[in-house]
Amino acid sequence: MSTTTATLLISCPDQRGLVAKIANFIYANGGNIIHADQHTDFSAGLFLTRIEWQLAGFNLPKDLIAPAFNAIAQPLGAKWELHFSDSVPRIAIWVSRQDHCLYDLIWRHRAKEFNAEIPLIISNHPHLKVVAEQFGIDFHHIPITKENKPEQEAKQLELLHQYKINLVVLAKYMQIVSSDFIGQFPQIINIHHSFLPAFVGANPYHRAFERGVKIIGATSHYVTQDLDAGPIIEQDVVRVSHRDEVEDLVRKGKDLERVVLARAVRLHLQNRVLVYGNRTVVFE
Amino acid sequence: MSTTTATLLISCPDQRGLVAKIANFIYANGGNIIHADQHTDFSAGLFLTRIEWQLAGFNLPKDLIAPAFNAIAQPLGAKWELHFSDSVPRIAIWVSRQDHCLYDLIWRHRAKEFNAEIPLIISNHPHLKVVAEQFGIDFHHIPITKENKPEQEAKQLELLHQYKINLVVLAKYMQIVSSDFIGQFPQIINIHHSFLPAFVGANPYHRAFERGVKIIGATSHYVTQDLDAGPIIEQDVVRVSHRDEVEDLVRKGKDLERVVLARAVRLHLQNRVLVYGNRTVVFE
Amino acid sequence: MSTTTATLLISCPDQRGLVAKIANFIYANGGNIIHADQHTDFSAGLFLTRIEWQLAGFNLPKDLIAPAFNAIAQPLGAKWELHFSDSVPRIAIWVSRQDHCLYDLIWRHRAKEFNAEIPLIISNHPHLKVVAEQFGIDFHHIPITKENKPEQEAKQLELLHQYKINLVVLAKYMQIVSSDFIGQFPQIINIHHSFLPAFVGANPYHRAFERGVKIIGATSHYVTQDLDAGPIIEQDVVRVSHRDEVEDLVRKGKDLERVVLARAVRLHLQNRVLVYGNRTVVFE
Amino acid sequence: MSTTTATLLISCPDQRGLVAKIANFIYANGGNIIHADQHTDFSAGLFLTRIEWQLAGFNLPKDLIAPAFNAIAQPLGAKWELHFSDSVPRIAIWVSRQDHCLYDLIWRHRAKEFNAEIPLIISNHPHLKVVAEQFGIDFHHIPITKENKPEQEAKQLELLHQYKINLVVLAKYMQIVSSDFIGQFPQIINIHHSFLPAFVGANPYHRAFERGVKIIGATSHYVTQDLDAGPIIEQDVVRVSHRDEVEDLVRKGKDLERVVLARAVRLHLQNRVLVYGNRTVVFE
Repeated sequence: MSTTTATLLISCPDQRGLVAKIANFIYANGGNIIHADQHTDFSAGLFLTRIEWQLAGFNLPKDLIAPAFNAIAQPLGAKWELHFSDSVPRIAIWVSRQDHCLYDLIWRHRAKEFNAEIPLIISNHPHLKVVAEQFGIDFHHIPITKENKPEQEAKQLELLHQYKINLVVLAKYMQIVSSDFIGQFPQIINIHHSFLPAFVGANPYHRAFERGVKIIGATSHYVTQDLDAGPIIEQDVVRVSHRDEVEDLVRKGKDLERVVLARAVRLHLQNRVLVYGNRTVVFE
Repeated sequence: MSTTTATLLISCPDQRGLVAKIANFIYANGGNIIHADQHTDFSAGLFLTRIEWQLAGFNLPKDLIAPAFNAIAQPLGAKWELHFSDSVPRIAIWVSRQDHCLYDLIWRHRAKEFNAEIPLIISNHPHLKVVAEQFGIDFHHIPITKENKPEQEAKQLELLHQYKINLVVLAKYMQIVSSDFIGQFPQIINIHHSFLPAFVGANPYHRAFERGVKIIGATSHYVTQDLDAGPIIEQDVVRVSHRDEVEDLVRKGKDLERVVLARAVRLHLQNRVLVYGNRTVVFE
Repeated sequence: MSTTTATLLISCPDQRGLVAKIANFIYANGGNIIHADQHTDFSAGLFLTRIEWQLAGFNLPKDLIAPAFNAIAQPLGAKWELHFSDSVPRIAIWVSRQDHCLYDLIWRHRAKEFNAEIPLIISNHPHLKVVAEQFGIDFHHIPITKENKPEQEAKQLELLHQYKINLVVLAKYMQIVSSDFIGQFPQIINIHHSFLPAFVGANPYHRAFERGVKIIGATSHYVTQDLDAGPIIEQDVVRVSHRDEVEDLVRKGKDLERVVLARAVRLHLQNRVLVYGNRTVVFE
Repeated sequence: MSTTTATLLISCPDQRGLVAKIANFIYANGGNIIHADQHTDFSAGLFLTRIEWQLAGFNLPKDLIAPAFNAIAQPLGAKWELHFSDSVPRIAIWVSRQDHCLYDLIWRHRAKEFNAEIPLIISNHPHLKVVAEQFGIDFHHIPITKENKPEQEAKQLELLHQYKINLVVLAKYMQIVSSDFIGQFPQIINIHHSFLPAFVGANPYHRAFERGVKIIGATSHYVTQDLDAGPIIEQDVVRVSHRDEVEDLVRKGKDLERVVLARAVRLHLQNRVLVYGNRTVVFE
């Protein structure tokens, strides 16, 4: 029997009966809800929910679920996304010279932590081609300079379409992606090597060292037009001391970066992240 | 307008339509759900949920909600509790000689972190009477010996009834409560000064020191007939090193104990803890 | 027999033989070193050390230790401080309206966590006078406005001298202390309710909520002329989620603030904090 | 110029003048101490220290340092080890079927986090041969049954000698090493997938799930004759909730295991771990 599930992510102006209406839609069609979580942002007047149910025994065929739910959602003024667990997203990993996040993402993919395919690696440096080859993933070297950025981004976009990519993961890409690009491909997750909003911008470890902080962090967020200011998905920290040189912060930070990025990618792939305004609800 | 809310905590054999049935009950009676959270324990085949809604505008009077919901719950085989936010539970704090958890609970009560009254402190030692007086709380000194335990526990029970106590918080009481007592008054939360199940029983800090652990913890749990084995509500830990003597573990442990106990008490008072088997679901 | 110890905190241009010279000074005079810790900041070319030894059996009387050590330190170009464990520092706690850090510091003082006296509380509001009275500590209400700040700070300074205060602890004082004041009384520890350098300045919890961070923090630092930019002594963090409103951040933050401030004060009182540049070495 | 350092790890009955005597030995021979750390275990009456100094400019040739220091150490009753930073230890990694710790150790080795060689992987299963090949490391498949354990352990020992191995890292080896083996090759670090001493023995994640703990951990320790009871080097924890199934504990645990094991191996390789009794001093 199929174990496929459908997941609805809904945000909607708050009003009476929302839980009942959504649950009824699923129950009336014979669905079995296995996860339901909701949150009300009272200041924004928003109701936000994630509902996942089993498709086995569900009376509506997959292609009719969206139109049927739309009939309910529209009068409520709801924004919503529908995902099926058997449609496997395709990820492009973008890297620069550092390999720790890349190795980590590949290892997790092979360990079945991600419901996704990783057919493509893009880099502005050739260094990590060897890793791509080791695991049989296509690697494209697209060097970026101030001058060639527009045409190189066009090439990147073309590759994303060609490989049918759904999500770009900036795994220490160390380059700013242009507003234009983001406008055309908005599904981008980045890992920033600081506890944002501390140390926005370049060289956060050096600046953390100079400031003499006792804890460093890493932040994974969706990429928006504002540098390092997109909706935060996940953060974590580690304690440091005066004994840690900058290179120790870098080393300890790598352990944070790979875990924080991996958690964010997994949460996104499980459709547990709902963005509204510049904030996220993470339905864990 | 009233801001009173009702909260249902339900555990029920898993089956289709549970969310819809419960949500419909509230919606049909004009209620506005402000929090709903659910969990399915697939191995136990149990559906567990917490739903909170506003009573303002709810068509059923408070005393009819339970019977009306029972008509829905019984056919489903559900166990449930109903709580109203305007019925304020009454807590008895039991202490021995250490004052850190007592001060902390009193301070939090005054800071409005707890929706509760604290009319009673019971101790097997007279030492903390002065704290009780400082904050105008009744203090009863009931010394316990091996010989007098049954009659002293009878006195304790009598006091709980006299003060209409709903919850006993063992805030470093350092005595074992008898099975008999627990049978008659089962709502008891304890703080244990170890990361259970490590160091069950006496002198956990000494044993942690001897074992040379690098992290110590504290655990808050409901008290059951099995010593230190009741359902865990909350745990937390702190890092230690070879520089920490036993007295440093005790000192660092106190900071853990008061925070972990306070979180557990608050979660309980907000009706966020659902016990099943020897486990808890904490709807945070 | 006396258990008094002497502690030297030394910073010195790095050179061969420093450990030997300092250890020899103590050994030659019959001292027994019980703690010795050192750190070399290679980029600054600085050797930093903390040495604590028992005075029992030490051949030099207390008042001759400083001049004798100076004869060694001067040729090395060392800066140093000498502290005796039987000279008990006197603390003034400055508060505004919030009581959590105040209660916490008083409780720890009574629990013998601090080797210090707390004879004085100063506030710009009268609200916490009742706490001061509860524990028999003098309370002075010195309201501050933009206009009267200079003369009120003069009064504060006078009180510090009158009470022979060695350390001011800003326990949620919520006022900026003037550069003039700091120039005249530089031993001031503050607790800031954010994970500095994130959310420098006012209303960090509101800004943390708006930014949608997943972790909040607190920072204890020495006060310098630059607002919220002094040398950091201690920091800690706690995880938050979309379920936490601003008031929840404030509540969770209070638990952080009192622990972080208390740790910083204790480290300072144990002469474990050595400031150089805008950084600290914390000899834990 | 050489950047080689020498490191002494010393444990010694506590007595006056130890710091001076050891520092003088180094200074008198022209050494520059770059790290010195000490600890006194008052209950055991033991002085424990780690001193690292630069060999550049040191007057004693490497092979005379040990005998020269022995002349000082013997009258003090000290136990000690001497290590040179340019003698690179050789590690054998022992695995079973799980690859996460193996990949992690290899990646860290390549990222220069370990001052060591990894020439050998031994496993009781053939599954991870492919990983060994991927990175050009020799792989020996030595299946273990109850019956063949003595002769297979003899083969393992022979391999350790043949490859000149200094340290065995049990990276999820999932087999008990015999007392005999440990007697002949005592330098073994293990990773246990629980927060020891909780859940000693088999299936800790299943038992953690059943106990309903809110935090799980991992522990890296030296292997001794007592199962899971050797001196602890490092531990860490991660929060879990009722939403985590056993498989989620396993997944979250993997992230802990690889970080905790890697930290322990690195600390050992930097000669920062001093074992005495069943405890460690970790000079971080």
